[in-house]
Amino acid sequence: MPSPTENQQHLDITAERAKCSFDPSLLTPLFYGGEDTMAQLKKIEAMIDADPIFDRDDRYFLGRTERFQRALPMVKRYVELRNKHGLTPEEAAYFKVYIDDYIPVPTKTKKLIDSILPSLSITAMFLPVLRSQASDDQLKVWGPQAENYHYIGCYAQTELGHGSNLSRLETTATLDIERDQWVINSPTQSSAKFWIGTLGKIANHAIVQAKLIIKGKDCGAHPFLVPLRSLHDHTPLPGVVIKDQGPKQGAISMDNGYARFNNVRIPRENMLMRFSQVSREGVYSKPIHAKLAYGGMTAVRTTLINHSALSMARAVTIATRYCAVRRQGNVNLATDLETQVLDYPSVQYRILPLLSHAFATIFSGYWMNDMYAQYNADISKGDTSLLKDVHVYSSGLKSYCTKLGADGIEEARRCLGGHGYSLFSGMTDFHRQFLATVTYEGENALLTQQVSRYLLKLYKDVLRTPNMHLSPPSKYILSLFHHNLFANQRCEAHSIKDFYQSEVVLHAFQHRAARLIYELAEAEKVSSGWSDLNLECMRLSKAHVQYIMIENFYNGIEKRFNNHANPTVEQQNVLAAVRSVYHLHVFYTMETELGEFLEDGYLSPVQAQWVRQGLKDALKAVRPNAVGFSDCFGFTDTFLNSALGSYDGRAYERLAAMTEREPLNKDLTDKNGVIWGYEEYLKPLVYGQVGPYMGKVNGAGSSKL
Amino acid sequence: MPSPTENQQHLDITAERAKCSFDPSLLTPLFYGGEDTMAQLKKIEAMIDADPIFDRDDRYFLGRTERFQRALPMVKRYVELRNKHGLTPEEAAYFKVYIDDYIPVPTKTKKLIDSILPSLSITAMFLPVLRSQASDDQLKVWGPQAENYHYIGCYAQTELGHGSNLSRLETTATLDIERDQWVINSPTQSSAKFWIGTLGKIANHAIVQAKLIIKGKDCGAHPFLVPLRSLHDHTPLPGVVIKDQGPKQGAISMDNGYARFNNVRIPRENMLMRFSQVSREGVYSKPIHAKLAYGGMTAVRTTLINHSALSMARAVTIATRYCAVRRQGNVNLATDLETQVLDYPSVQYRILPLLSHAFATIFSGYWMNDMYAQYNADISKGDTSLLKDVHVYSSGLKSYCTKLGADGIEEARRCLGGHGYSLFSGMTDFHRQFLATVTYEGENALLTQQVSRYLLKLYKDVLRTPNMHLSPPSKYILSLFHHNLFANQRCEAHSIKDFYQSEVVLHAFQHRAARLIYELAEAEKVSSGWSDLNLECMRLSKAHVQYIMIENFYNGIEKRFNNHANPTVEQQNVLAAVRSVYHLHVFYTMETELGEFLEDGYLSPVQAQWVRQGLKDALKAVRPNAVGFSDCFGFTDTFLNSALGSYDGRAYERLAAMTEREPLNKDLTDKNGVIWGYEEYLKPLVYGQVGPYMGKVNGAGSSKL
Repeated sequence: MPSPTENQQHLDITAERAKCSFDPSLLTPLFYGGEDTMAQLKKIEAMIDADPIFDRDDRYFLGRTERFQRALPMVKRYVELRNKHGLTPEEAAYFKVYIDDYIPVPTKTKKLIDSILPSLSITAMFLPVLRSQASDDQLKVWGPQAENYHYIGCYAQTELGHGSNLSRLETTATLDIERDQWVINSPTQSSAKFWIGTLGKIANHAIVQAKLIIKGKDCGAHPFLVPLRSLHDHTPLPGVVIKDQGPKQGAISMDNGYARFNNVRIPRENMLMRFSQVSREGVYSKPIHAKLAYGGMTAVRTTLINHSALSMARAVTIATRYCAVRRQGNVNLATDLETQVLDYPSVQYRILPLLSHAFATIFSGYWMNDMYAQYNADISKGDTSLLKDVHVYSSGLKSYCTKLGADGIEEARRCLGGHGYSLFSGMTDFHRQFLATVTYEGENALLTQQVSRYLLKLYKDVLRTPNMHLSPPSKYILSLFHHNLFANQRCEAHSIKDFYQSEVVLHAFQHRAARLIYELAEAEKVSSGWSDLNLECMRLSKAHVQYIMIENFYNGIEKRFNNHANPTVEQQNVLAAVRSVYHLHVFYTMETELGEFLEDGYLSPVQAQWVRQGLKDALKAVRPNAVGFSDCFGFTDTFLNSALGSYDGRAYERLAAMTEREPLNKDLTDKNGVIWGYEEYLKPLVYGQVGPYMGKVNGAGSSKL
Repeated sequence: MPSPTENQQHLDITAERAKCSFDPSLLTPLFYGGEDTMAQLKKIEAMIDADPIFDRDDRYFLGRTERFQRALPMVKRYVELRNKHGLTPEEAAYFKVYIDDYIPVPTKTKKLIDSILPSLSITAMFLPVLRSQASDDQLKVWGPQAENYHYIGCYAQTELGHGSNLSRLETTATLDIERDQWVINSPTQSSAKFWIGTLGKIANHAIVQAKLIIKGKDCGAHPFLVPLRSLHDHTPLPGVVIKDQGPKQGAISMDNGYARFNNVRIPRENMLMRFSQVSREGVYSKPIHAKLAYGGMTAVRTTLINHSALSMARAVTIATRYCAVRRQGNVNLATDLETQVLDYPSVQYRILPLLSHAFATIFSGYWMNDMYAQYNADISKGDTSLLKDVHVYSSGLKSYCTKLGADGIEEARRCLGGHGYSLFSGMTDFHRQFLATVTYEGENALLTQQVSRYLLKLYKDVLRTPNMHLSPPSKYILSLFHHNLFANQRCEAHSIKDFYQSEVVLHAFQHRAARLIYELAEAEKVSSGWSDLNLECMRLSKAHVQYIMIENFYNGIEKRFNNHANPTVEQQNVLAAVRSVYHLHVFYTMETELGEFLEDGYLSPVQAQWVRQGLKDALKAVRPNAVGFSDCFGFTDTFLNSALGSYDGRAYERLAAMTEREPLNKDLTDKNGVIWGYEEYLKPLVYGQVGPYMGKVNGAGSSKL
């Protein structure tokens, strides 16, 4: 009787690759931003893999303190290699992605490219803010200092009591006209700066957001460059109380910090003066375009969309591979092998939609990147007309995609069985890091209000101006409301097949979003205030974003895979495979939201059954290519750092091998194999030296075995 | 202008308590299992709070190795105190609950009482299995040894390649008739024992599940008592390769272990012989009641239901209190105070249903406890008729409630804003521990097949025997199918109000479950096999369990709160408050599953709208009592260990205070306030000593700031 040994795992994953209908390597460059960029970035990967400072073999064993201690050498080495090899900003950004640890060093922003490899993060805000908010004269002095890490900087906005609401920050910057200085103060405990990356131990400068006060008048929050620590010996400067803020779910190597300021004096010129200015005489000049200050946040949100795609792809890679090599349950009598877990619909249902979400997110990320690039081109010509769209879509997609990721990665982890609970699974460390994204740069539930408010306003505009221009993703508002047709619309699908037509699907999602806009407008009329409409906003934003995700997915496939006059067989295979993932995304999303389509009779009961059946069909269609798709993202084994999800499928061998490095088995176990603490804590138990049991041995409350 | 300082937080939470319509302390004894038990258990809490060994002030700063080192003294102290104070099994079990760390020492099982304080866990299986599977003669010898920790035992079932499927375990126990011994072997890497609590470093004995082989014949898995380490000096015994299995999401202080056996010899009598026996001559006798061996797993599943309730209640306590004292967003012009976050419907929608799930789970847990007690009473009289129900309902409820908990706690954490990402929130450590429950004792998705298979069988039985007896929670199958009425049923609600009638609600859930049973039966006819029906089973099991949760919640309220002939005002207030939570549970569950009720026309579109409105109303109704409900569970601040969820509401002060204990601020920072590693890793950056930047400074790929 053959036993399900390790070698079977390798056989299984090899067989999976053999049955894949397309060549996964044809897709990989897409995720790296093209062939050339991929070649460039693969060199970065090799550089890091070769350097022991970035070795991650012991990462899962380290506590927070040890992770921080491991990070500092990485910081120095990163700067050394950046300088030595003259890495471009893109390469430097990818360097930090690939080491896969959130090390405490600021990086430059980079332009958003067609790649799911994110480059920006909240801890990287110091340089972008400096660049966008300092005047040209200030930049000339400060720029090179920051660029070369003479100034190690952080961006200090969040306080204990407030995050993104600038208007309620409590830190003050009061002008002392006589001495031509700002006096920075933290008047209350809740005004302490908190969550500031690299502030706790590393940074020597901060851009501090503080209420600008002149002659008792509060002019609102403004950014100031505040020295924190001596450039000579790194000691905290007088009046600065500063420390690490303690352990977090993720960002484990990062010294997010706490700071309070007690009459800290800085020159008047340390206010960042691109948009607002204060003169020697204490005269304050307002910014002309207040909204331009928000550009940075929008860029980070856009990056988070790509980051979500990357993280989902990573989880799918591990989960798919392990579920292909893990056999449990039903036995094939001919081979005496149990069933590959990936062959159970319950497992497919929990993993493969995440693959489809990853793809949908990738294409929406690219769409967002394009919009952002267009916006940047426009504003350099003084045209801010895209500002609203960029803001709304980066908000809506960030809110939706980070939730897909945070929930979906955990669901994929649960599909790994018991071993998913081991850190060796490779699913936990990056997921804990990712969990931050649902909160920062706009809490997800809150962001849905931005999207809904925007759609509601468009609807009201349309009612007033029936022939107005709307951008493509909101055009449906025009056609539906102008003609007031939506109320009695019915889905025109006559069989399951019709749900493979993009028009049928897009119409369903347009209809639902339109209905929810209408319902929000009606609810607003009878509500006591905007915040009573939270739930309506959450529903509407999700509906609209799901619609544009599907549209972007569809358009993305057309643009990137259906663009050959005479496609080769290989190209046709890729197109067919990616389309099967698209259909899975559609059916899964519709099935999840079935109530929304049934609620007003748009879908009939029988159509609903077709959707459910379509989902089952779609899972079956994607299943044979699942391992191929897990390969297509191009993750290295080093990056995955997973016993369960490695390319060769040898999960059990790797799990056993990784236990060898466990500190309890090394430092804490003596040469005879006895654990630390045995003599003091265990021997007295075994030898019966902890005193007799004084309770009743029989009867009620007995301890009788 | 008053600033939102810390004191406001205390004022806010005090005001919340003032407006609560009932006395929360009247509910607390319910969760402790009654007034007397509560008094008893509060003494245990005080005993632990007073003992520095169990101090948890530094818990969030410790890595896995340190947590383990902290756990060993706890193990010894626990046994000392147990003995000294003669703790009953119930008290001893609660002792381990309250220290809130998964320390590596086996405990006795305890009887299930009407309390949400769980007592059993997977690592506590050694003694229950020994008690249930060893013969009386064996118990006489081994019992006292295990009871007094001369034998420190573990239960070794799971292997790298297999968990709960006993029939595929690979470890072998081969009889050597000549020497009257078993020879234990791990033939492959995948046969290594894995996940075994206390095996890694602590245990000196294991009950090993191994395939019993006599003269080449495999008689299937049986339990054997195998010595692992010397009772004299704790060194591993010859042939035993044993080690800690490495870090996990939770169980951080526990030495879950890995073991391989290489010709390890034990006496024939070390087979546990209550049900099967092997004689001196090598004759094997089969067990009479094979199923009785599963009793232990059912008990653990039942405990997990209670554990889910406890964990949800804990998350709700923290989230509710912090969202009551956190103010963000809309400003009240009169007070210049922002809005309490808990006043936003989006926050209520994400926290308060978890409160309702906690209550629903409590009442279903009590229902399950009763059934289990009845079952135990029955089998002592040889009546096993409840075995099926106990198995099915413990499986279904475990599957549903642990998912409610795992997902709901994370959602509550996300409602805490950025601070929810700090370990100081008190939401993370216990959630990571809880995440194991979705997988162990039967993976959640898998368990839904047990429930569905059972319901399907009942349906088929009913078709054959229309007048058969069914137990109350499945009676609906009888009435609906026998009369074949369900197909054209419509909900009879004529207004929102009708959804406050339990009959209307229960009928809706019965109808839906019945329909899904019917659909499963139809699908089975055309399916290629049972495992093709995974998704149908998941849907049906959820539907049935949601139904019995609601029924148990309703009946539980009637039994416990509506049982007074002349209720006092206080009793009426409690009844009204708990009922509002019940209605929230109903509306939230219906709204979540709306598609299921609309799909066959059972609910009309207008009724669906009522359900949505009912949910909004229910949130509003529970809101004023939210902090009262967070108090009613009786958690101590020490147990919660949360900066955000303490009784007095002073969240920001506590957050700031907890940073003081951060090791980076103590051991790793020198007296001048400079971090470890500055000279070596940071100074070279600040001083410009890492070499010049060799890239292009302008143009494409530029690093220009």
